[in-house]
Amino acid sequence: MQASIIAVGSEMLGDTRLDTNSLTVTRSLERFGVALARKSVVGDDHIAIAAELRFSLSFSDIVVITGGLGPTEDDLTREGVSGALGLETTEDLAVLEKIEQRFRNRNMRMPDVNRRQARVFVGQKVLPNARGTAPGFHLAVDFGGKPKHVWIFPGVPFELEGMISSELEPWLQSMTHQTFYRRTIKIVGLPESSVEEKILPFYRAHEDEPITILATNAEIQIHLQARGSSDEAYPKLNAMEQEIRQLVGDRFYGVDDDKLESVVGRMLASRGETVATAESCTGGLLASRITDVSGSSAYFVGGTVTYSRESKLFMLGIDPAILDAEGEVCEPVAAAMARGARRRFGTTYGVGITGIAGPTGGTAAKPVGTVFIAVASLLQVDSRKWSFPGSREMVKWFSTQYALDMLRGLIGKN
Amino acid sequence: MQASIIAVGSEMLGDTRLDTNSLTVTRSLERFGVALARKSVVGDDHIAIAAELRFSLSFSDIVVITGGLGPTEDDLTREGVSGALGLETTEDLAVLEKIEQRFRNRNMRMPDVNRRQARVFVGQKVLPNARGTAPGFHLAVDFGGKPKHVWIFPGVPFELEGMISSELEPWLQSMTHQTFYRRTIKIVGLPESSVEEKILPFYRAHEDEPITILATNAEIQIHLQARGSSDEAYPKLNAMEQEIRQLVGDRFYGVDDDKLESVVGRMLASRGETVATAESCTGGLLASRITDVSGSSAYFVGGTVTYSRESKLFMLGIDPAILDAEGEVCEPVAAAMARGARRRFGTTYGVGITGIAGPTGGTAAKPVGTVFIAVASLLQVDSRKWSFPGSREMVKWFSTQYALDMLRGLIGKN
Repeated sequence: MQASIIAVGSEMLGDTRLDTNSLTVTRSLERFGVALARKSVVGDDHIAIAAELRFSLSFSDIVVITGGLGPTEDDLTREGVSGALGLETTEDLAVLEKIEQRFRNRNMRMPDVNRRQARVFVGQKVLPNARGTAPGFHLAVDFGGKPKHVWIFPGVPFELEGMISSELEPWLQSMTHQTFYRRTIKIVGLPESSVEEKILPFYRAHEDEPITILATNAEIQIHLQARGSSDEAYPKLNAMEQEIRQLVGDRFYGVDDDKLESVVGRMLASRGETVATAESCTGGLLASRITDVSGSSAYFVGGTVTYSRESKLFMLGIDPAILDAEGEVCEPVAAAMARGARRRFGTTYGVGITGIAGPTGGTAAKPVGTVFIAVASLLQVDSRKWSFPGSREMVKWFSTQYALDMLRGLIGKN
Repeated sequence: MQASIIAVGSEMLGDTRLDTNSLTVTRSLERFGVALARKSVVGDDHIAIAAELRFSLSFSDIVVITGGLGPTEDDLTREGVSGALGLETTEDLAVLEKIEQRFRNRNMRMPDVNRRQARVFVGQKVLPNARGTAPGFHLAVDFGGKPKHVWIFPGVPFELEGMISSELEPWLQSMTHQTFYRRTIKIVGLPESSVEEKILPFYRAHEDEPITILATNAEIQIHLQARGSSDEAYPKLNAMEQEIRQLVGDRFYGVDDDKLESVVGRMLASRGETVATAESCTGGLLASRITDVSGSSAYFVGGTVTYSRESKLFMLGIDPAILDAEGEVCEPVAAAMARGARRRFGTTYGVGITGIAGPTGGTAAKPVGTVFIAVASLLQVDSRKWSFPGSREMVKWFSTQYALDMLRGLIGKN
């Protein structure tokens, strides 16, 4: 089976936004062995949408359309699709009632424009949207004498993701009998070229496999695939994972949906230990990442963002002599922050970060990107100086990534 | 004039890589007022490339193709284009010599496979590539009785960028005699449908303009465009901006690259005022957003993330009676956090956020997404209860967005 994806929305034809929804859809298609023939972006224009759909259908058994189901006048996916396929639409009172209910739940009146979202294709399946007002559609149609499937989803990523797992994937499962299984191996603290070198024997041993390596957000991912039933695929993926772990050692930190913050969180939760943070240049990003994990209140007690010199003194109880000796950006201050966070919040571990995120504030001795990170337990403080490249946002991100990795190391030793 | 972009490469049909070259091409097209009708990605398949090109040409005066000009067997753009347009190719000895020279300069012998890159379209223009081996092409062809232009560039971003400025832009300049200017109007605190209703008179007055509305990250953007010289375009954009501001009032917060955190930052900096944060459910995200702005150390003194009950007491000095009365998630606690942050850090303003980010922890009285936000100045505390939809990350984001908006309101009144 072959598929195409069409993203609808003029904003994605500008010079700033890309269609990222297609990656989510592609991931699902690949899991069930459906090849993507092409993908495209069209504007909010029902004639263009209709032409694009007809062209895509000529190549594909399945066409997935995202976006253009909103309530406003430039949401024209319905009109484009009915034009392309000669389908009628009608207002569905049950759908309308659900939309009105959603607004009532938030103590709001449904604006009149939202009424358009209750229009459905006559005789075709309406897909409920648990996360938003716009329902989706699954159209089973004849095109050029062949049966084709058109899936239409809202463009809001959170809504799309929900409907892919509740609607598209169960259908793909029922249609295809071969699945693909995938595993992503995650590695931190090494540049891509070093990972490449280390895993060369692995590449050599699996020359015919579709292995890809990807550098993203200060970590390296190795993407593996295996075909067949889960009984065949899992042992194979497990064996491949073990081979890579042998080669990269403790630089391996997790698989698939694991993130450094969730891996560290699991370590803390399983030991009944806790952590607190003291951040300067990362400005709260480390605490925010730690608390992105559901259930983090079990091990994250709290944190401080101490941007000023004074706040480092009174929030963390740092000895002013330490700040006076080498300034606010140095290894002793990072260590004192880590110890201060641990002591103030009464936690097992403390993390301290101080540095120069830029773009201004750098000096010859401490250029932009200079960051000191420390992690403290009762008996030990590990601290290290880093030099990170890139923009302010990148320096902040790198700092939190390496702070989490250092914390992972300290917990492992404790 | 209308254009389409085709990116060639099977790797962009997987679930990890997007075609980012199209943004570079779009930026140039927009500068010269050429509208993008559609863009697409096709795999390394000469039949698919040919079909895509013919479909694109039926809508467009200009088609820009990137990628598929490399030396390997799966680089098939030449074959696809000659198939689509009935053009012959031939080996160009001058091009071949340049490629061989490039290798000699690096003390290497040209691999035989690179010979393919010397094949050019008979009677069409070859575009030199100063940054790589593959030349590009500019084909002037007749398609369906109309003159069309097909531009073919290598997919390597650095090479593409060089050839866009050396080849495509001078040609666009010579073909078009006007440029486009754009403005993005940013609105916060209203759902898309309400903005749509409020600005209906504006839409009516500008029915022929390419106005788009976009809901993203808990704000609404209205994208405006004006044609012509800057002397013509800027007054027109300014007038359109004023019309929208009249209709949406203080829900307007900025334009173009403005973010709520940068707008609030500018207000604080210009008044010499300061702010501190006290966060519970947002876990540091608010402080992180504020400190994403370069120069924020001028007005951001610090913040606390108080996840545990005890940390709210000792970090912020909140009266335990307030916590005991209605629990940690209520309006009085948010207000006490805002006042506590202001007092502890000695700032002009304090912000307090407490709520239930989910997915667990909700109750019938306080379901997931219930968030209390307070902003405090010396004389005043504004607080409000919100009900946000969506995932944990979305609740965190919405909370910081509305906290910044409430702070913006309080500063404005102060």
